[in-house]
Amino acid sequence: MTRRDFINSTSASYASLLAWGMLPAAPASALDLPANGQRNDGKGRKVIILGAGLAGLTTAYELGKLGYDCTILEARSRSGGRVWTVRGGTKETEIDGGLAQTCSFAEGHYFNGGAARIPHHHQLTLQYCRELGVPLQIFNGANESAYLYNEGGTGNLANQRMRISDYHNDMRGYTSELLAKALDQSALDQQLTKEDVDKLIDFLKNEGDLNTAHLYKGTNRRGYKSKSDPGAGNAPGTLTDPFGLTDLLRSGFMQPVFYNVGDYAYEQQTTLLQPVGGMDAIPKAFEKKLTEKIIFNAPVTELRKTDNGVRIVYKKDGKPVELTGEFCVCTLPLPMLKTLESDLSGTVKRAADFIPYMKTGKIGLQFKRRFWEEDDGIYGGISRTNMDINQIWYPSFSLQGQKGVLIGYYNFYSRAEAVGALSIADREKLALEQGSKVHPQYPAEFDNSFSLAWHRIPYSGGGWAVYDDATRKKYYPALLEPDDNIYFAGEHTTYLTAWMAGAFTSARRTVEAIHARVGGYTKN
Amino acid sequence: MTRRDFINSTSASYASLLAWGMLPAAPASALDLPANGQRNDGKGRKVIILGAGLAGLTTAYELGKLGYDCTILEARSRSGGRVWTVRGGTKETEIDGGLAQTCSFAEGHYFNGGAARIPHHHQLTLQYCRELGVPLQIFNGANESAYLYNEGGTGNLANQRMRISDYHNDMRGYTSELLAKALDQSALDQQLTKEDVDKLIDFLKNEGDLNTAHLYKGTNRRGYKSKSDPGAGNAPGTLTDPFGLTDLLRSGFMQPVFYNVGDYAYEQQTTLLQPVGGMDAIPKAFEKKLTEKIIFNAPVTELRKTDNGVRIVYKKDGKPVELTGEFCVCTLPLPMLKTLESDLSGTVKRAADFIPYMKTGKIGLQFKRRFWEEDDGIYGGISRTNMDINQIWYPSFSLQGQKGVLIGYYNFYSRAEAVGALSIADREKLALEQGSKVHPQYPAEFDNSFSLAWHRIPYSGGGWAVYDDATRKKYYPALLEPDDNIYFAGEHTTYLTAWMAGAFTSARRTVEAIHARVGGYTKN
Repeated sequence: MTRRDFINSTSASYASLLAWGMLPAAPASALDLPANGQRNDGKGRKVIILGAGLAGLTTAYELGKLGYDCTILEARSRSGGRVWTVRGGTKETEIDGGLAQTCSFAEGHYFNGGAARIPHHHQLTLQYCRELGVPLQIFNGANESAYLYNEGGTGNLANQRMRISDYHNDMRGYTSELLAKALDQSALDQQLTKEDVDKLIDFLKNEGDLNTAHLYKGTNRRGYKSKSDPGAGNAPGTLTDPFGLTDLLRSGFMQPVFYNVGDYAYEQQTTLLQPVGGMDAIPKAFEKKLTEKIIFNAPVTELRKTDNGVRIVYKKDGKPVELTGEFCVCTLPLPMLKTLESDLSGTVKRAADFIPYMKTGKIGLQFKRRFWEEDDGIYGGISRTNMDINQIWYPSFSLQGQKGVLIGYYNFYSRAEAVGALSIADREKLALEQGSKVHPQYPAEFDNSFSLAWHRIPYSGGGWAVYDDATRKKYYPALLEPDDNIYFAGEHTTYLTAWMAGAFTSARRTVEAIHARVGGYTKN
Repeated sequence: MTRRDFINSTSASYASLLAWGMLPAAPASALDLPANGQRNDGKGRKVIILGAGLAGLTTAYELGKLGYDCTILEARSRSGGRVWTVRGGTKETEIDGGLAQTCSFAEGHYFNGGAARIPHHHQLTLQYCRELGVPLQIFNGANESAYLYNEGGTGNLANQRMRISDYHNDMRGYTSELLAKALDQSALDQQLTKEDVDKLIDFLKNEGDLNTAHLYKGTNRRGYKSKSDPGAGNAPGTLTDPFGLTDLLRSGFMQPVFYNVGDYAYEQQTTLLQPVGGMDAIPKAFEKKLTEKIIFNAPVTELRKTDNGVRIVYKKDGKPVELTGEFCVCTLPLPMLKTLESDLSGTVKRAADFIPYMKTGKIGLQFKRRFWEEDDGIYGGISRTNMDINQIWYPSFSLQGQKGVLIGYYNFYSRAEAVGALSIADREKLALEQGSKVHPQYPAEFDNSFSLAWHRIPYSGGGWAVYDDATRKKYYPALLEPDDNIYFAGEHTTYLTAWMAGAFTSARRTVEAIHARVGGYTKN
């Protein structure tokens, strides 16, 4: 009896099955649709897939299991799309006269230019990593030892870096003290019993590390003064002093740019993961399953409907080539879709025209020495600033090695637009100048850089689809249904925009829809 | 000009040097004492070191650099002492009639029976890993996805597991709401200006994810209901509901056993690290530097003072062997020291008699399937219970592999004493029964186990020295000065008890003291 049979045959409740580990909390097993040999299965049906990003690769992989004859057309010479690991030898030339860059990072060093982390609850992404044998390691997302830096503020704490842990420990302390005071004074008109109030005060004493008088006077959670760590002999260590509440309130760190801390956003809560050796291990693993199914350097120029299917025109060695099939699965990002000549319906074309994409950029900075580890004790994680560089990401791999690549900026919206508009040299200059305010070691240790602006990257044209309630309502539905025999997949057809999980789940949805249409599968 | 010269010659302040990365925040470089060729250096001076744990290994390594002729006597057939990685083939027999265990974990699986994590600010530990070429990886300490489980409570949330993230998100929400209410009602007699109060309320709105009315009504930080994750098509996801404040307050999770969460204790704040392949990579790396300096299977029985040095008796193949030297560095844990026949002074003997050691135990449980990852999305981290098992640790390595070893209990004091007193089979039974309450998959997936109780492990006799103010004052000083030509090192001679950093820093202190005494070094 298989696990599935057991689940189907038993009368046990979902909750008890879940509790007994018989059901994963989300779809985390291999896709298991009725396959070859069934009536009207996919055998021999021709499907043309536009784009060898994760959505396209997954669609071809899953349809291939069902016997469909898939061809992926990919404009680039590589697979993965916005899953792109930049390492020594990586080349790119941005649009609008961008200079050609060739990355000169040392062997073994890299950064993930696009997708860079896997939430522990993105079970479909994790399932594909298992299924394809992609080894994972921990991505250190929320590192309390990283810094906050508020440029241009006016308080006592402006224009100086602060450890996130100091901010958290102190704010937890003061707010716990204030609430304990309100409770002690019965100042709050609330519904709690005396006993519950006592429990809450117990909680606050722990939460804020308050003293017996319920006051926050600093805490050993903040660590020790420089050169006064506890040690051997007569060295108990000297504790640090807390910052003042007023100074903290005026620090500017309440701004959202600092506040998107990893522990809080659901997608960034521990634990985050990453493939060993770079995120492109995932598309590379798919490629091995799709030998001779991908045509590289084949940008699509036309997308046509025919009486019984689709006709695609792409360029190969500068010349147009035609390909016909029964179905097309278009995974192109919308900024690319809107440049195609096509027979697409008006609603789809408007969706492509009006759903905005994130402007976003990153720069990888190679340094001769991992000073953030050696001098600052920062092993992975993210520092946050209100400058154009916005975030600094520290690598969670090759710890304590000889060199290192950190992400010197990761920015969005107007900041990304402004920085992306700079020359390659000026982006580097900006990253070094602003980053030096957090890490004065930058100038002495800098080696080389590689930068990218996704809204200027050919065949991507943006970071990810950005929906608000209005665009969800007005434009999103057009992408969910097939336009005759043309299906749409990719993160922009999901509520998991910007995540690889969006690409995966959209591919499965499309495979199920096609297979149901040809009669090979009845959806429950 | 070397870095050291620059630091000595410049008039720059310590703070500016630190800011410019010219000074590490703690001693993080190779020990650099005046070496061979100086007047009265260590050349040829005989030092006998008792114990090949980290303190002994480091002492021999550093004295060796200075020309001393060191011999380490080690009772066991391995180095490392309480730095001990348990893997397939590991054997141990505890005292008091303990049964011989041989570990049968699968290839590549292990747990660290003793020291298991390196804080990012233990710079000396990190420095030795760098100096010896021990590669590190992230140890996931504070995993918000792990569980809390309160056995025997009476509230609505008793006897059921809860994700740490749910507890944190809800408690942050409610306490932020309550404090915002107190501030809104001007109920608090505090010193803040109106503007600062507004900033504090802004902070609380972010901290607790309050709605516009400053109420906590749950948050998308809690994630989505089972089978209602956001996905492709019309699947925005369904948010979970918060637990009630009263239920949370009565959950029992305010007890210290649950509260020692990683983000709070200084030593456990992100980021924690571990050597790739097991903590014993550190002693093994030292061993390579100390060829033919370590005599294994050589338990010391006598420690004698002579006119100009020391005389040690140890057993080799059951027969007593004598060794004489100028100095002895004794790194034996105090429970072992007190069993020696010795000429030690009364104050040292009393220290050995009266400084208590932690009773503590662990069990490694191998499972056929990594259900905690596949079913629960737990990749590393620690679940906390009030049962005898106390903590469950999930491995931060070999993620998504075929099998896995987790630490099924890590307990202390009376819990460790009670569990350690059980037979090997009964310890396993207890770990499985209690652990099943958190992970019902245990019975179906269990493979085999290996357990240990440090207070019953030969040649250790306990986890680590436990000081309070009284024992620090009364007994600790005796261990800090040499007893004639006998020096003491090990975590028990530091304020970093229980940490490898204690062993390292004590070894350096001892090396400096000996080298200063023979005139090879003048302490600044």
